[in-house]
Amino acid sequence: MKICFATNNSKKIEEVKAALPDSIKIVSLKEIGCEEELPETGDTLDHNAFQKARFVKEKYGVDCFADDTGLEVASLQGEPGVYSGRYAGEPRSDERNVDLLLKNLSGISNREAQFRTVIALILGEDEYAFEGVAKGKIIEERRGEKGFGYDPIFVPEGMNQTFAELDMEEKNRISHRGKAVHALVQFLTSKNF
Amino acid sequence: MKICFATNNSKKIEEVKAALPDSIKIVSLKEIGCEEELPETGDTLDHNAFQKARFVKEKYGVDCFADDTGLEVASLQGEPGVYSGRYAGEPRSDERNVDLLLKNLSGISNREAQFRTVIALILGEDEYAFEGVAKGKIIEERRGEKGFGYDPIFVPEGMNQTFAELDMEEKNRISHRGKAVHALVQFLTSKNF
Repeated sequence: MKICFATNNSKKIEEVKAALPDSIKIVSLKEIGCEEELPETGDTLDHNAFQKARFVKEKYGVDCFADDTGLEVASLQGEPGVYSGRYAGEPRSDERNVDLLLKNLSGISNREAQFRTVIALILGEDEYAFEGVAKGKIIEERRGEKGFGYDPIFVPEGMNQTFAELDMEEKNRISHRGKAVHALVQFLTSKNF
Repeated sequence: MKICFATNNSKKIEEVKAALPDSIKIVSLKEIGCEEELPETGDTLDHNAFQKARFVKEKYGVDCFADDTGLEVASLQGEPGVYSGRYAGEPRSDERNVDLLLKNLSGISNREAQFRTVIALILGEDEYAFEGVAKGKIIEERRGEKGFGYDPIFVPEGMNQTFAELDMEEKNRISHRGKAVHALVQFLTSKNF
């Protein structure tokens, strides 16, 4: 079984490949001949993930999946959410995004937040999605050098370290994206390809 | 393994039970001593499903899952969506909801729509969700007596019959909820309980 992971992030592809048995072959966008930018204009994670997956399925005729991730902060009514990557505008900058979030939360005592990843999957005519959620809180200053995005200011529930202080393996085990990938992998491997 | 399906719909419980091996025991809200109404005040399917599941997990301390379903109509910018059940107001009425949708679509040629079900799952400290999508179109007049809700005016992609004209078994195979349940079941059974 061959399935395309509709992302240009080779690190993500390697991670999913490592979690799947050899009978499921993951191919990249480049390998199916897609070198164009995927549309991603929705106002929800779901919308964006399905938009990318459907684009690839319709134009290239291959089964595929695509992901989208957002950080949802309770006292900001779920923002930045689907706009997490471009919270502080274009060009995208982790540094400016984190600065803006800290600014918008300054003086606010409720620091609850969650990361959420949606993976939209299209298999033949069927559409599914898998989500992983990591609850936690936003701290007041950056800590840690690993990871990316909002990782330095996010402390997952039940832990003292930020995502940016965890090894990748440990982060994958408890992270939103790790859980969504896990659910996807369980689903794909339980089908008898 | 024991897990609560946070719904008061016994038909849904029976359906999920039938799809699971005996090693996974589904219990109802009543069986865990919950007879109160679950909160469901979000503006997305995800929000509602997680709100219900977290309420049960926090208050009753059991692993659980909860679902929410909406009909998203393209030319109505995704409405009625999370408000599908009460589109025409309270008290909820399938008949008035369908009438209102047909009225709001009268004269509109783009009839594309999709049903979407989200199942939020809480296992220990981990949160996941599973989605199923059924794409199709809204026809102009009701057809069929089975199912419920918007089934009589929804024709799934690649078929000529409405959901209300299909046997339950056939509908479950291709429906949004059937797919979400399938993904959940694959996930639960692939874990070694």
